[in-house]
Parts: sequence; C-alpha cells; structure tokens
Amino acid sequence: MPVLRDPVRLIPLLFLAAIAAGTALLSLPLATTDGSSAPLITALFTATSAVAVTGLIVVDTPTYWSGFGQAVILILFQIGGLGIMTAATLLGLMVGRGFGLRDRMAIQVERNRLEVSDAQSVLRLILAITIVVESIVAAILTTRLMTAYDESFVFALWHGLFHAVSAFNNAGFSTYSDSVMGFQQDPVMLVPIMLAVILTALGFPVMQDLRANRLRYRRWTLHTKITVTGTLILLSGGFLATAVMEWSNPETLGPMGFGTKLLNSAFHSVMPRTAGFNSLDVGAFREETLVVNYVLMFIGGGSAGTAGGIKVTTFFVLLAIVLSEVLRRRDASMFGRRFGRSVERQALTVAMLALLFILSATMYIASVTNLPLQDVLFEATSAFATVGLSTGVTAQMPPSAQFVLAMLMFIGRVGTITAATALALGKHDRPYRYPEENPIVG
Amino acid sequence: MPVLRDPVRLIPLLFLAAIAAGTALLSLPLATTDGSSAPLITALFTATSAVAVTGLIVVDTPTYWSGFGQAVILILFQIGGLGIMTAATLLGLMVGRGFGLRDRMAIQVERNRLEVSDAQSVLRLILAITIVVESIVAAILTTRLMTAYDESFVFALWHGLFHAVSAFNNAGFSTYSDSVMGFQQDPVMLVPIMLAVILTALGFPVMQDLRANRLRYRRWTLHTKITVTGTLILLSGGFLATAVMEWSNPETLGPMGFGTKLLNSAFHSVMPRTAGFNSLDVGAFREETLVVNYVLMFIGGGSAGTAGGIKVTTFFVLLAIVLSEVLRRRDASMFGRRFGRSVERQALTVAMLALLFILSATMYIASVTNLPLQDVLFEATSAFATVGLSTGVTAQMPPSAQFVLAMLMFIGRVGTITAATALALGKHDRPYRYPEENPIVG
Ligand SMILES: [K+]
Ligand SMILES: [K+]
Repeated sequence: MPVLRDPVRLIPLLFLAAIAAGTALLSLPLATTDGSSAPLITALFTATSAVAVTGLIVVDTPTYWSGFGQAVILILFQIGGLGIMTAATLLGLMVGRGFGLRDRMAIQVERNRLEVSDAQSVLRLILAITIVVESIVAAILTTRLMTAYDESFVFALWHGLFHAVSAFNNAGFSTYSDSVMGFQQDPVMLVPIMLAVILTALGFPVMQDLRANRLRYRRWTLHTKITVTGTLILLSGGFLATAVMEWSNPETLGPMGFGTKLLNSAFHSVMPRTAGFNSLDVGAFREETLVVNYVLMFIGGGSAGTAGGIKVTTFFVLLAIVLSEVLRRRDASMFGRRFGRSVERQALTVAMLALLFILSATMYIASVTNLPLQDVLFEATSAFATVGLSTGVTAQMPPSAQFVLAMLMFIGRVGTITAATALALGKHDRPYRYPEENPIVG
Repeated sequence: MPVLRDPVRLIPLLFLAAIAAGTALLSLPLATTDGSSAPLITALFTATSAVAVTGLIVVDTPTYWSGFGQAVILILFQIGGLGIMTAATLLGLMVGRGFGLRDRMAIQVERNRLEVSDAQSVLRLILAITIVVESIVAAILTTRLMTAYDESFVFALWHGLFHAVSAFNNAGFSTYSDSVMGFQQDPVMLVPIMLAVILTALGFPVMQDLRANRLRYRRWTLHTKITVTGTLILLSGGFLATAVMEWSNPETLGPMGFGTKLLNSAFHSVMPRTAGFNSLDVGAFREETLVVNYVLMFIGGGSAGTAGGIKVTTFFVLLAIVLSEVLRRRDASMFGRRFGRSVERQALTVAMLALLFILSATMYIASVTNLPLQDVLFEATSAFATVGLSTGVTAQMPPSAQFVLAMLMFIGRVGTITAATALALGKHDRPYRYPEENPIVG
C-alpha cells in the first residue's frame, strides 16, 4: 500500500502549506495584543521561523503576539518539528541505512512505496518520545516557575509548556522578551532545557539506536558513533571557548560567580548548535566568540532531526577526508569503517551549498542595510542553520532582507539537497562515462 | 643524476632560509630612511610578505625603507616568485600531469630524481618569460612616468621596474604610499600591470601549455581549460560585482567618469585574485564588496604559479562535484573529462585547511585586538591567499597578531598540503582496508 510518492518533492510543499496556514492565522487581528493585523512580512517571517523551528523574530513574542498568536506559534513549531523528524526518518527507512541521494532515487524506482507498518511504528515512537520528554520538561519548568518565581499556575503552566515544546523541537522561541536571560543564575530552569535540546539535536535515528542499544556502543551504527562523539567534541569545544573568551566580558559572564559562569558557558555551547535560546546577551559577545558561534551554528546538530546546520556527521566526514589526505592514506575512515565515495561527495555538496546560500544572503542583506557585516553574517548563518540566536539586528532590517532570511530558514530546514534536487530538471544520468583526466589542484 | 630529494620537505626550508636572510638584511640600519634598525617583527613581517609575494605591509614602503631596503624587498619577491614557479613546476614534472599527493609520494619511491635536462629546460623557459614580460612592462611604465608624470629617468626607471617585477610576481608591493591610486585615471599605467598579473596568475603549467598550443583550445590540457575558463568567469564576475556595488560609493567609484569607473572595476576584479595592488581605497569598500573580495581572494589564481588562494581548479572541481550531485550524476566532470577520486579529495582538503587556517588566525587576532571582525577576516584571507590587499588595519596590530599574519602568508605560500605533509609523521598507508559503512549526512 503506497503512502508516499516522490517524497523529495512532497516535503517542501507540505512545509510551504504549513507556512501559508500559519501566515494566515498570524494575520488575524486576534493574533496581536493590540488587535491590529500584523503586516504580511511580519506574519510570514514569524510563521516561517516557527515551522522551520528557527526562532528568529522580528517582533517581541510576548508583547506583540496575543495568547492566540503565541499558541499558533507553539503549534507551528510543534508541527514543524514533528514533520521534520517524521519526513527525514521515513525517507531514511525507504533506503535502509544509506540516505544517499542517488540510492534513494534508484530505490524509489523499484519500490516507491513504504509499508504502512514501518511508517506506523516510526510515528508511534516519535510521538511517544515527544510526549514523554515534553511532559517531563514542562512539569519541571512549571513547578520551578510557581515555586521560585511566584508565577500563578496558569502562567507557569503556559510558560513551562511553551519552553518545553520549544526546547524539544529546537525552536528557540520564548514567551519572555529576553529569552531565558532572566534565569541565568538558575540551573533548575536551564539544565532541563539544555538536556532536552542535547537529546533531540542528536536526531531521530540516533535516538532510535540509543533506545535499542543503550550505551553498548559497540553495537551502535557508524552514524550514531560519529554523531555522539562529534556532539561531545563540539559541546566541549564550545564550552571551553565560550568560558575562556567571555570570562571577563563585563556584559556577559564577567559579573557572574564561578558556578554561574560555567553554567552559562555550558548553556551557550548547546544553544548555537541548533536551539537558539540565550541566557547571555549575544549582541555583547566578543568578536572571537562570534566566530566560534558561526562555526557551531554552521555545523549544527544530528541528521534527521530538528537540528539544523550541515550536520555533525557531514562535518566529521569532511574532517576525516582531510585527515586521510594529510596522513597520505587511501581511505577516509572513522571507527574502523571507511566511507563510500557517494557519501563523501554528498557531505561536500551539503557544505558548499550551505556556504553559497549563507554568503549570497549576507551579500544581499549587506547591500540593502548599513548593519555591521559581522552581525549580518551572524543572522544569515543563524537563519540557514535554523538556530535563532540573534545579535538583535533582524528586527531592524527592511522587509526584503527579512524575506531573504525567511527563505534561508526555509531552505536550511527543508534541506539544501532536497531543495536543489526538487528543482533540478535532469533526472537521468548519462548513459556513458567520460574518460578520466585530473587537473592540478591546490 | 639526482637533483632533488624529497622536495616536499625541501621547499619550506628554502623559503624559511630566504625569509631569514631577508629579515637580517632589512634589520640593517642601512635599510631604513632614518638609519635606525627596524624592529625584528617589522623586518620579519616585511621579509615574509616579500618572499611569499603577498604585499601586506606594516610600515609605509617608500618612507620607511631606504633605497637599499626597497631593493632588498624587490629581490626577495623576485626570488620568491621564481622559487614558487620553479619548485611547483619541478614537482609537477616528477609525476607528469598528475600532481596528486599520493601519486607524487609513490613515484618518488621509484625514482626520486629528476633528469637535469628536464629541470634545465623548465628553468630556462621560466627565466625567459620572466625577463621578457618584466622588461616590456617596465619599459612602458618607465616611459609613461617620465612623459606624463615628469619623473626623472632614474626615478621613473626605479618605479617602473619595481612595479613591473611586483606585478609579474603578483607581489603587490609598491613604491608609492597609496599603491597605484595615483594612477586611477590612467589606463596606460593600470592596463600593463593588469595584463602582467592576469598572465602570471594563470600559473606556469598553463603558460607553458598556451605557449605550445596557442589558442587551439582543443589541444589544451584539462588543467588549462579549467584555469582559463575559470579565470574568465571570476574576472567577469568580479568586474560586474565591483562596478555595480561601488558605482555610487562617494569614496571609491562615485566621483569618477564612466570609463574610469569601468577601468577601476576591471582593475579590482584582477587584484583581489592575487596581486594586491589597489587603485581604489579598499578600506572604503562597501560591505557587500568586501564579501566579493573575500571569495575572490580565497579562490585565488592558477596552480603552480605566483598566485595564492585555494586555486581556480580547486574551486571548480568542488563546484563540479556539487553540480553532479544536484543533477544526480555518477561522475563529476568538466569539458568531457571526469575527475578521479584522489583529485576530488585533494580539492576538498585544500579548501578545508584554508578555511581552518584563516578562521583560526581571525579568531586569534580578534581576541588580541579591538578591530572590526570584517577587517580582521579581510586581512587574514588576504595574508593566507598571499593577496596583500588591506583595509589598513595590519599596521595597527600588536606584534603577536602580525606574527600570526606572517605565519599565514608562509603557510598560504608554501601550500597547505605541502606544509601539513611535511609535518605529518605517518608516511605509510595501512596494509589493510576497513569495511565500508556510511553515515547519514546533511
Ligand atoms: K532553533
Ligand atoms: K600579492
């Protein structure tokens, strides 16, 4: 029984439909606190940011959007997050472990259907993980907001639920104007958010593997090994870099106590990878910290999940190739497995297209604004990698620049290869191969 | 008769020796106009910049350095340029057309010598081209400086010769404090410099191919086809982008007449690729123009010549891989020839290492200065790609930052792969291959 036909083209259409519906809902007078209709670009940007689980904003969420508007945003990023995990995982199922683009196409020709039982079991697991994790995090946050911050049950529940769903889907939207900066001293608020983000940023295939094999790491797939190890390396590096570079910055870590410095350094090693909450003022970061954030955002989290960026595996495959060349080895390998040529090229393609989109958008936005280039590059990278961290300049941009950022979020979310493939006309390979000749490179 | 043994390790040593000698000479009181000894970092930076044919400066060449000092700089960049062309071409000869690192190593084991006759014919051709082109350009510039700018014969000859050698070696050093901005209205000065730079930035193998086959492009090697076509694309793109983006900038093209705008746009499409002369104030460029310059500098010119950057072929090989993935083709190809896996990986490695070095240096320099990140990134890219264009901040940097830039120039010049390989301890491949397993990427 066929449930999916050419899903590579279907996915962008479903996302566009969700964005269109969200834009319409957020354009209602009911959606704003002052009862006026939001401008089209504001509704479109916010809906795209929510569906793409990015979290970049052009208006202040709690003061501009009404309770209805905030609920629409919540539903959009929950749908967006579930949609990404489901779509990516179903696509993966269709070709077993190899997510290769060409394999995927070849296999579709043979069997462009997916058994309903597979799909159902995947959906059931995704829903189960979603409900369990979101409930636990929401319960902790709600309790803490009631007991330590004197919020009423209704407010605490709303804020707790909103942040739990936002964290689980790596959305980064917050019902507080200053994101979670008000909780920078409070590990009971920050740690559950961090843990939910770290877990879901691994991506669904890794979660599934961890559920089946727990910590028996010898049984893990190569994908899980690379993602988990890579995540640990990126988190440690981000933590150290943030701590060292911001330690004495009077506008960020400077005035804090020792433990709070470590807590917030840890928080800001997790958030630039995908989630986009901030407990520190990103606009006050030192320039070297911005560079670390560019890199962490660009790399992003695990494949086939709500994380953005080029993905951890993509980055480490590229690194392994570089290492093998420098060490003069024939194969690029990690954990005793060599990579196929196809995956190496896909990794390169993903990274190059990401760079192309980010740089093009940066150039366009720089040409229509007078904003500092470092901030424009930051917002463009944040948008493409669906991170949502901001130095605060997005709201100051003209509509055309905001539209470009919205397109970046969409492309970054749907996946550069998916987008490019859906557009590409040439479907069939040449029936012959050219002879090999190699230019001098480097 | 063996003339070269393990040249991969020899090349960096020869460059270091030239830098050491240059540093010693520039430290003499005789080398400065006021007769004091230059600080060590100033002499070291200038010698490195000259040997690496970069042209970044920390002191004003005509006012700080005496005639003797300037002559030392001239000799250093002439030696540097000849050294690069000779070394790269001899390395290439040893393995025929394939400059592959692994091939190169494998073949060295078999015959780690090069017949003297080959080497002699290469050296003779390089010297002939150098003398002919430098003489013609020097003659034109000298005549123009005497007739149109009322310089005495001795001054005109010195300035003409200096700029001709500087242009031919893509060095970018100038005996004028404002580089060639004084000639921004004068095509007779700018065009010969541009043509010399375009020619030599093709690299020696392309020059050799063009000399043998002229414009019978069907006979050209794949390397020549890619380099020439890529150069035309990059020059056209750079010209259009500079013209459009700077057209109304009051500090650059704005006040100029139509023809002068086109002339200077053309000049600044050529210079960021490698040479580093400027007829416009780079520090006044718009931010979107800076982004175009980052990209042009990063890509650079042709392989095995005095140009820097990752090289034109490297960039287009990477682009071809991306295109083949997007079009779902098995092979990446250009001009009816597919690339081998080895060259694809080398291209990736060169680009990744370049990014790694540039970003690391940018972070370090940003952390020890308060300079704008966009300017620091510009100087780091300019240094690594041995371009020498500057927004003017290098002179304001502390010695440690200048030292990092000097290291970038050295690494960028000697070649990232050469440098990394020379350092790598592991010389032999594993005697077995791992089984293949592929992670999900993207
Ligand atoms: K996000
Ligand atoms: K140069």
